[in-house]
Amino acid sequence: MRAKCVVAVFSTLLSCHLSFSIYENPKQHLAESEAVLDPKGELLLKWRVDYSIRRIQFEIVLSRKAPEFDWFALGFSDRGELKNSDVCLLWTDYKGRDHFEDMHADAHGKLFRDRQQDCERFHLNSQSRSIVFERSFDTCDKDDYVIEDGTVHVVWARGLDKLYSSKGLCLTATSSSDHGFIRVRLWTPPNQPKTTGQELKITNNNLKVPESDTTYWCKIFKLPDFVTERPHHITQFESSITKGNEGLVHHMELFYCDAEPNLEMPLYEGNCFANDRPEITRRCSKVKSAWAMGAPPFVYPGEAGLPLGGPQANKYVMLEVHYNNPELRKDWVDSSGIVVYITADLRRYNAAVMELGLEYTDKMAIPAGQNTFPLTGHCIPQCTGVGLPPRGIVIFGSQLHTHLTGVAVWTRHFRQGIELPVLNKDMHYSTHFQEIRILHRPVKVLPDDYLQTTCIYNTLERENATIGGHAITDEMCVNYIHYYPATDLEVCKSAVSNLALENYFKFEKQWDNMTISYEGSPRENYLAVNPWTPLRANALKELYTESPISMQCNKSDGNRFQGDWEGLPLPRIKVTLPIKNRHC
Amino acid sequence: MRAKCVVAVFSTLLSCHLSFSIYENPKQHLAESEAVLDPKGELLLKWRVDYSIRRIQFEIVLSRKAPEFDWFALGFSDRGELKNSDVCLLWTDYKGRDHFEDMHADAHGKLFRDRQQDCERFHLNSQSRSIVFERSFDTCDKDDYVIEDGTVHVVWARGLDKLYSSKGLCLTATSSSDHGFIRVRLWTPPNQPKTTGQELKITNNNLKVPESDTTYWCKIFKLPDFVTERPHHITQFESSITKGNEGLVHHMELFYCDAEPNLEMPLYEGNCFANDRPEITRRCSKVKSAWAMGAPPFVYPGEAGLPLGGPQANKYVMLEVHYNNPELRKDWVDSSGIVVYITADLRRYNAAVMELGLEYTDKMAIPAGQNTFPLTGHCIPQCTGVGLPPRGIVIFGSQLHTHLTGVAVWTRHFRQGIELPVLNKDMHYSTHFQEIRILHRPVKVLPDDYLQTTCIYNTLERENATIGGHAITDEMCVNYIHYYPATDLEVCKSAVSNLALENYFKFEKQWDNMTISYEGSPRENYLAVNPWTPLRANALKELYTESPISMQCNKSDGNRFQGDWEGLPLPRIKVTLPIKNRHC
Repeated sequence: MRAKCVVAVFSTLLSCHLSFSIYENPKQHLAESEAVLDPKGELLLKWRVDYSIRRIQFEIVLSRKAPEFDWFALGFSDRGELKNSDVCLLWTDYKGRDHFEDMHADAHGKLFRDRQQDCERFHLNSQSRSIVFERSFDTCDKDDYVIEDGTVHVVWARGLDKLYSSKGLCLTATSSSDHGFIRVRLWTPPNQPKTTGQELKITNNNLKVPESDTTYWCKIFKLPDFVTERPHHITQFESSITKGNEGLVHHMELFYCDAEPNLEMPLYEGNCFANDRPEITRRCSKVKSAWAMGAPPFVYPGEAGLPLGGPQANKYVMLEVHYNNPELRKDWVDSSGIVVYITADLRRYNAAVMELGLEYTDKMAIPAGQNTFPLTGHCIPQCTGVGLPPRGIVIFGSQLHTHLTGVAVWTRHFRQGIELPVLNKDMHYSTHFQEIRILHRPVKVLPDDYLQTTCIYNTLERENATIGGHAITDEMCVNYIHYYPATDLEVCKSAVSNLALENYFKFEKQWDNMTISYEGSPRENYLAVNPWTPLRANALKELYTESPISMQCNKSDGNRFQGDWEGLPLPRIKVTLPIKNRHC
Repeated sequence: MRAKCVVAVFSTLLSCHLSFSIYENPKQHLAESEAVLDPKGELLLKWRVDYSIRRIQFEIVLSRKAPEFDWFALGFSDRGELKNSDVCLLWTDYKGRDHFEDMHADAHGKLFRDRQQDCERFHLNSQSRSIVFERSFDTCDKDDYVIEDGTVHVVWARGLDKLYSSKGLCLTATSSSDHGFIRVRLWTPPNQPKTTGQELKITNNNLKVPESDTTYWCKIFKLPDFVTERPHHITQFESSITKGNEGLVHHMELFYCDAEPNLEMPLYEGNCFANDRPEITRRCSKVKSAWAMGAPPFVYPGEAGLPLGGPQANKYVMLEVHYNNPELRKDWVDSSGIVVYITADLRRYNAAVMELGLEYTDKMAIPAGQNTFPLTGHCIPQCTGVGLPPRGIVIFGSQLHTHLTGVAVWTRHFRQGIELPVLNKDMHYSTHFQEIRILHRPVKVLPDDYLQTTCIYNTLERENATIGGHAITDEMCVNYIHYYPATDLEVCKSAVSNLALENYFKFEKQWDNMTISYEGSPRENYLAVNPWTPLRANALKELYTESPISMQCNKSDGNRFQGDWEGLPLPRIKVTLPIKNRHC
């Protein structure tokens, strides 16, 4: 940053915005968060959300090492691309005058000034080396991105270019070190009172991070004796990031090893995908905590805690850290990890996790070449009816999950056919940004309620059908809901009914001449459908939309609840939510 | 035929049938006809139909030259195949005893005895060397063929085999000279009184028939002066077959050369498909008379005649004879042709021909690989309304027409949405057997009546779509109706509407990834649809069934009647005919 830019902008722009600002609001509305924008950690993004006025203040803090620039753009786009992004641009013209403008990029990344200017209350702070501005969630300008809950792709770019005008400045012409994006949840929940309790730090220890673009590092830990001797509750968890490594650590998960109490686990430490990773460590797969870049501490509701330890549980947990090292640096040393706060003074309720969405099976598939293809999993009234306690459960957290092609996920909530507010919704979902999210509003779910989870997939890059399954190239559609009190119901998921699927394959063989084998698996048969014309893709979409379903309505011991869960009709929906008022 | 067989059958079987027979009925019910069964002309089939008792008497007359046999089968099948045929079998067992049985062949051509025996009143006449038996039109036995109006494929086979039992006798094991089939209309109309009038013989003259399996021989004639000077009426036409050539001459047509009165035609005589056939002779294409094997004389109703000659008409006609010479004999000499009876004493009404069915265009197509695919052409109330005289017309004859893949044709008749008896129907139609058929019942058609002509096609042997058009490998669907009084309306045909067809091709391009060109002709685009899966074939069938139509409602001068004939809805049908009572 050139001094001139800072000074000039100060003098010309600081005085001209006198409207209502975040700073005029009482602190309790504010949620403050930060995330590193660049892999070198030279650009720190801080933001403060004021839900009462539906507005965010952004602050970009530049480290002393950050290179100079004539212009800097920060903004948003659907999936992190600079093309078609919506940005706020700070720039110095060829005469040395500074400007701050609301711009939007076209499909080539070229900037144009918005008719309506919505990058507000801009100022520079030369002492803290920061650029500050504000932005409403929804500016009601069709050229602006709407900031919603869930994943937001924050894009940035900078350059050293003498400019006559900002019009036509091309963001995509910058070198890779001069632009980038991060995924964050901007709508972080308002800060909650931190709980007290015993800290349990589960971190790597001066790990020499591999010289590789992407590393998933797995490390098994034995819980301390005091934890394994008495049942504990986790009341909060948060990240512990080695200072300076904020751009390196992408996300982390803490898994419980779901095995008999006395089964010993090897203290494996290494690449999660290494061939020498002991098979038995695959059992360390029940998520206890999950953190992703920008996520604040996860604080359990005061009346509930997540069970950990005790004599009935296995004594091991596993930390998985996803490192992002695009510059292939050899000198990263990291001791990051997760800190859980635990207490032996058990809270009133056990918290637990329930799976909504689609069964992990090859009965569902996504055609190749789809821009937005939906799959929907159903947790139907018959299952919540037998599985939930009479007074219901309270859902306070949600972790959405798909594999590589998922781009949006949401769960709708119905009671007696009438839709209630959406449970969780992420219209810019990415498999690379999976955190357990505290809901802004805990949701009560009663027996007979209906939870409908939809995932949207983009398979434009795929040549064959993408099939439901466990491999990273297969797909899933899951919402892991975090709730209390813990119940017997652990899985409330569906798939298309067996009969409907059989009939579909019969149809594809007999009417569409596909080389279907009635003895073959659904996976084989889906792969035999080729090419995926729009007509075939649409037929599959209709199959999934119209057909009866099979239900997995399972207890935590893996057994299904009693009853016939095959060939059930889809629940009737009588009233859907009105379209949201945009206040425009 | 062995003498013993004749005698034995006489003695054992003649006495055992005492039921009601054709011979007990008065002569006026009877229609008598004959046709040659084999190319050598050694087997003559005669038949007498008694419509009052719905029964036919068959007589097979063996010439002296006919080879001997131990068994002889005569029967019927869908399209002339021995497999799945229904036959009456005369056979001599290894002890020399004769038997006569009602049998049916399986899908391999093997015979099995019907549970119900319906080959009745069998007898042999050794003097006239003939085998005689009777058969009801509909025996109500599922193993028996139902004899209806239209084309009947009469099959025969014979053999010299010592037999213990008739069961398992294999018809298809015979050599090609020991089996065959002919197409005849068994339901010949009752004999009509012959008209008097001047005979005009238009025949070949000692033609040396080419040594070729199939020959279409064309010969142009100039009409005699007395015919060209005064308008005449054709009152009857019939075949004149050179004696001994009954198996050689397959069918004949007499065409009028539709040109200016004084345009001279070259007196071409030669193969119809020869390269040196003068182009101008293509104008000799308006059918005046048509005869096919087994057809009786065609007698016009007493009040009408077909115009021929006169100063307003061209002076030339063309005879086309289709010769069948499967044994490639070089010694055939033929002088067959058509005899028309004409009179200058004009009858009250001019007879005329009108075209029903589908336009000759590539807007319609039949998918490849279809067993029975329908195309339907519509002569709608709007067109009969403007085209027919207030008191209507009387249809007395009909010539059905498709090219190679047509297997059934019919025309339904509706008045005010209520179906009247079918106009003409041939469920075993063959392009190789096109005669002008006198209707058993003349049909009155009024203005606002609706005539719906459907053709069924079998394209199992085709690899691409078969398109509407003039080439023999293209298809047509036409019913040339013969009627009086002559009106201005000459063509009452339809095709799918242009807009519906455009939308279909758009759909196939955008949803089904076919390489359709919006600038391309329908023919090119139909050929781009590939492969013809059942789904695609069904989509096309639905397009034709559901879409609006374009109408060709044309006068004889080629101009359309005034009005908008594009994008019309299909006429509403309120009441269809009840399913025919089979008297079973």
